[in-house]
Amino acid sequence: MTTSLPVTDRTKVRRKPQRGSHERAVINEILDEALICHVGFVTERGPVVIPTTHVRIDDQLYIHGSAASHMLRSLSNGIEVSVCVTLLDALVLATTAFHHSVNYRSVVMFGRAFPVEDTATKLTYLAALVDRVAPNRSGACRPPNAKELAATSVLGLPIAEASAKIRSGPPLPEEGEDADLPYWSGIIPLVSSRGAPENAPDCKIAWPG
Amino acid sequence: MTTSLPVTDRTKVRRKPQRGSHERAVINEILDEALICHVGFVTERGPVVIPTTHVRIDDQLYIHGSAASHMLRSLSNGIEVSVCVTLLDALVLATTAFHHSVNYRSVVMFGRAFPVEDTATKLTYLAALVDRVAPNRSGACRPPNAKELAATSVLGLPIAEASAKIRSGPPLPEEGEDADLPYWSGIIPLVSSRGAPENAPDCKIAWPG
Repeated sequence: MTTSLPVTDRTKVRRKPQRGSHERAVINEILDEALICHVGFVTERGPVVIPTTHVRIDDQLYIHGSAASHMLRSLSNGIEVSVCVTLLDALVLATTAFHHSVNYRSVVMFGRAFPVEDTATKLTYLAALVDRVAPNRSGACRPPNAKELAATSVLGLPIAEASAKIRSGPPLPEEGEDADLPYWSGIIPLVSSRGAPENAPDCKIAWPG
Repeated sequence: MTTSLPVTDRTKVRRKPQRGSHERAVINEILDEALICHVGFVTERGPVVIPTTHVRIDDQLYIHGSAASHMLRSLSNGIEVSVCVTLLDALVLATTAFHHSVNYRSVVMFGRAFPVEDTATKLTYLAALVDRVAPNRSGACRPPNAKELAATSVLGLPIAEASAKIRSGPPLPEEGEDADLPYWSGIIPLVSSRGAPENAPDCKIAWPG
């Protein structure tokens, strides 16, 4: 497998190309850190964007949903989809309002999703999804049974046409008179963390973590 | 103004309708808390989803970008757009893998964006955007000048066709034999917070916060 994805008409980074990347390692890291993605597709009533959870396994991105879900049924037909994943890292405060920005890492993907019919692959994906919430969680809960598996549609999207875009670091230095204005500039990091686990009302087991 | 938006064919919540809302107050609170939205639209090459910052003012959602941006130019033509905002609140760990979930608050909007040509409205939006990063920040930086304003396209999208969807609380109680399985269940809150401000290398001013 090549380390970089081909640049297509859809994944060429036109605005601020210095922020762009087509490296698989860069794209994969963003897909793996984000807990949700946004899926865009077109229905007879126009474009729709829906949030959902995902897991990357090798060079495929997987999502799932109820077999009865409108989105899952639409995408199973192999229509074009765009998936976007975004991590927001910091607020960027510049001396000028114009140079205010955010630090972020995002991936935009394109392609056609395919339904995963193979039971082993479905189980592997669902275990990986559950393991993202806590280490080895898939071994610490009752796995899906046949009825639950049948009610769950899993879709795969090849990571073949995608780009990452990243802004990091401080605000750009201002020029001319702006450089001498008496305003604070810098970044305010945005931190995502996990709070203390809260037992369900009917849970009699101590948190194992 | 009515307190609830009309339910349309696009905003009827079909899956788990008990999680849905069309109340303006519910929708506005989610739009106001989220720092970014995901914008979906259709080009000649298919659907595209792009992340961007936004501000709600009254019953309009505003976004902006470079006047040279492909997205801004596309949307300025009044094509159909779907905007999605998602806040992730907790991981939900159930006794069964099948009942694992996430607590979230999301809004999905539909409509046609319009270019904001009025300078006063553009300035009001840009000030509100900067004020989201720190209180009264728009008064503590150099405001946009005429050249910067001309280089910035602002688009408005009426909040007229939208729905919210919310999951909160613990995992659903399991039934039958599943209720007695010896697995921990509950939620792990996801917390978004701001870290300590970091001065830009050329900043000689102390953080005013």
